Amino acid sequence: MDQLGELAALVGAANVITGDDAQGYLTDWRGRYSGSALAVVRPGSTQEVADVVKWCGRHQVPIVPQGGNTSLCGAATPDDSGHALVLSLGRLNSVREVDTDNDTMVVEAGCILQTVQQTARDVDRLFPLSLAAEGSCTIGGNLACNAGGTQVLRYGNARDLVLGLEVVTAQGEIWHGLRGLRKDNTGYDLRDLFIGSEGTLGIITAATLKLFPLPVAQCTALVGLQSVEAAVSLLSIARKGFGPALTGFELIAGNCLHLVTHHFPQQRMPFDGPSAALPWYALLELSDSESADHARERFETVVGDAIEAEVVVDAVIAENISQSKALWHLRESIPLAEKEQGKSIKHDVSVPVSSMADFVRTTNEAIQSRFPGLEHVIFGHLGDGNLHYNIARGTAFSEDDLLGQQEAIYDIVHRSVHHYHGSISAEHGVGQLKRDLLDQFKDPVEMKLMRLLKQTLDPHGIMNPGKVVISEAG
Amino acid sequence: MDQLGELAALVGAANVITGDDAQGYLTDWRGRYSGSALAVVRPGSTQEVADVVKWCGRHQVPIVPQGGNTSLCGAATPDDSGHALVLSLGRLNSVREVDTDNDTMVVEAGCILQTVQQTARDVDRLFPLSLAAEGSCTIGGNLACNAGGTQVLRYGNARDLVLGLEVVTAQGEIWHGLRGLRKDNTGYDLRDLFIGSEGTLGIITAATLKLFPLPVAQCTALVGLQSVEAAVSLLSIARKGFGPALTGFELIAGNCLHLVTHHFPQQRMPFDGPSAALPWYALLELSDSESADHARERFETVVGDAIEAEVVVDAVIAENISQSKALWHLRESIPLAEKEQGKSIKHDVSVPVSSMADFVRTTNEAIQSRFPGLEHVIFGHLGDGNLHYNIARGTAFSEDDLLGQQEAIYDIVHRSVHHYHGSISAEHGVGQLKRDLLDQFKDPVEMKLMRLLKQTLDPHGIMNPGKVVISEAG
Repeated sequence: MDQLGELAALVGAANVITGDDAQGYLTDWRGRYSGSALAVVRPGSTQEVADVVKWCGRHQVPIVPQGGNTSLCGAATPDDSGHALVLSLGRLNSVREVDTDNDTMVVEAGCILQTVQQTARDVDRLFPLSLAAEGSCTIGGNLACNAGGTQVLRYGNARDLVLGLEVVTAQGEIWHGLRGLRKDNTGYDLRDLFIGSEGTLGIITAATLKLFPLPVAQCTALVGLQSVEAAVSLLSIARKGFGPALTGFELIAGNCLHLVTHHFPQQRMPFDGPSAALPWYALLELSDSESADHARERFETVVGDAIEAEVVVDAVIAENISQSKALWHLRESIPLAEKEQGKSIKHDVSVPVSSMADFVRTTNEAIQSRFPGLEHVIFGHLGDGNLHYNIARGTAFSEDDLLGQQEAIYDIVHRSVHHYHGSISAEHGVGQLKRDLLDQFKDPVEMKLMRLLKQTLDPHGIMNPGKVVISEAG
Repeated sequence: MDQLGELAALVGAANVITGDDAQGYLTDWRGRYSGSALAVVRPGSTQEVADVVKWCGRHQVPIVPQGGNTSLCGAATPDDSGHALVLSLGRLNSVREVDTDNDTMVVEAGCILQTVQQTARDVDRLFPLSLAAEGSCTIGGNLACNAGGTQVLRYGNARDLVLGLEVVTAQGEIWHGLRGLRKDNTGYDLRDLFIGSEGTLGIITAATLKLFPLPVAQCTALVGLQSVEAAVSLLSIARKGFGPALTGFELIAGNCLHLVTHHFPQQRMPFDGPSAALPWYALLELSDSESADHARERFETVVGDAIEAEVVVDAVIAENISQSKALWHLRESIPLAEKEQGKSIKHDVSVPVSSMADFVRTTNEAIQSRFPGLEHVIFGHLGDGNLHYNIARGTAFSEDDLLGQQEAIYDIVHRSVHHYHGSISAEHGVGQLKRDLLDQFKDPVEMKLMRLLKQTLDPHGIMNPGKVVISEAG
């Protein structure tokens, strides 16, 4: 039997995909990375995943695990050798268990994030992970890259939402670790080792997720600010005044909002006059366990104090759900408006919140001193110290000129991030995109330990090779 | 130069302790474990820790890291061979940095937990880790064993309170990982691998901790319940009604409260009549970002609804801080009252909250069917599924009879925990006490991976040997 025949015997012929039908799995969704593969296999159970991994071990065939194929760093795309197998988790998409008394659910890796959110909502619970790709990304991919998103301030990153895992190791063994326990100190934390490893140490096939009470009401406010310093002060005030009810704190540069209202004129700036022309804005979200009125009252008290203290210049507090949605829609439309404007050079970085103002100021200066006239398009999750610090061509550069300077711009921004003890990949991961930057910016002992772990858990280098870190074995 | 002379050259002669002065380091605080050692060394800096570890590597001398020596499972006590060095972190006790804008602080491993809490409070912040030994345990030990405590429901275990680490590896290299970032996806999560590894993979020398806003007010209520099922229903109601303001939910069996009021008559049962004789109670704590009045009003609303729904029989809501403290004091006095009553057989276990009622019922039945008349002393952190399920001699057994059955009782309880997919060590760790139970109760693939990690990161087996897991090398 040939190789494809052997695979078909493991997962069924219909689930071994080659030729044109495989194309959608071989290019990432933004069209930045593409590769080729021996085949795409779609196992239908954890045991079939294990069987395929064992087969790959025997034949030294590299495996590229893939969920919704929405990686922003090429983590789920094979190289162009054509030797690898793309292992799609799409058919492992059952919700295995929902336990409301324990506030947990067990889901398989191929479940779409939106399905997971909805399943929780159906039993009056919240699964808080929320990000732009939620309609197509899978929970397995979210865990593999430790996804972030807009609710991290309150609920943490993807890893913080997981109690247990089921994993197929590089040896094709199954670790049955689907525990639903909030306290378990019986040994090393393997769970967090696999979460965030981008499929390079093993394949997550299912997870026990934490659920939370669904807030009774949510309310949103947009405030105008004179500076990033003022935004940092406001964050402190808001954390004190709202406690854990503060579930969102997004920083938005003024030009981002103007970009949105320019390209999508049905959306409107909620301020008039000088308040519509401020350099910075912040979007705050409260999740309340009492009522919408209570949330609004809390906003009025705390934001009112911040206006009196001259931290906030002006504020719009949503009167109802549709106004809250309209404010969020402004924030969520920034990437789309950016795209309308043309290509830009994007960064997903984090720095300590206390360094945020200095980081923005000195990085802007460094960009302008080398490339006068480029435009800064800055927005992000200030509460997590996470900025999407993007550079657009402005009026002084052509798109080609801008893209020609991509490496130089990356370098300016990453060096600045490093100077402020930040991270060059806050929430998107490493994949292929940033793999070769890690040695430059990470502690050498940490890199040595990472290579040692890769070498130990995947000694033949078959798990998503070329992503995150290259061990000595390759 | 002899070995002690070489060590004195590394850390100073005054910090190499032998003979009688070393005794306090060689026996655990409960007097359950004792051992002997070549010496106790007290390095004064991370570099000195690294120097000592390198020296130990060259001479194949095992190292037992020790913080406040408050382990409940013998994790910080050497064996009796006399070959090991006890490495006390007590002199590494600086607070290196407090960053209020970033809500973080950097502390060295030897800082006493209470000092860490107080340092946070001094800048109007909360460091929420809280447990009985806080006056003498160190943050390094808390992280090494991933301590739990009373605030886990809201703030998580020790690992959830850490952003970055500084670690001396088994090779005596220093990993500089003191990041203060809430989002960082640049590789494998080494932080969580060292946290909870009980010093068997490396030595944590410093940590970047998360700080939280100090609540404006806290309020406590004690409620009477007919059953564990009712307590689980109330937890669900309280999580919905209070959201993240619910910072404590302790389950207490009625006999525990009577034990306290019997041995400490200055403490009083806050109920009269039939409400004072209920089988179960729960202690709830709210942390409010508005006011004490608001917290009390919320209690009245939500607990009032629970009384109307016949989930709660009766309730006492503290009128002021001193009443809140008195209610907590009842809960905190249970272990002391237990001790007054005589020796007991203790378990630190967790099960899914949804299995809690069945676990208690069937385990009680199993104990009574084998040993009629033993007394169950049950209390714990219901919100985390964590019970201290203890067995006292009651009136039918002598203390010696009880202790003679210790292994049989452990076995009944642990098998029951396993049946309900629970953990035999919820928050105290493994140490020496539970090491040999792991193979019986944990997934074999997980045990294989744990041994592989131990073997990889500590190939010569010098890091706290005999604790948690034995690798093939020993």
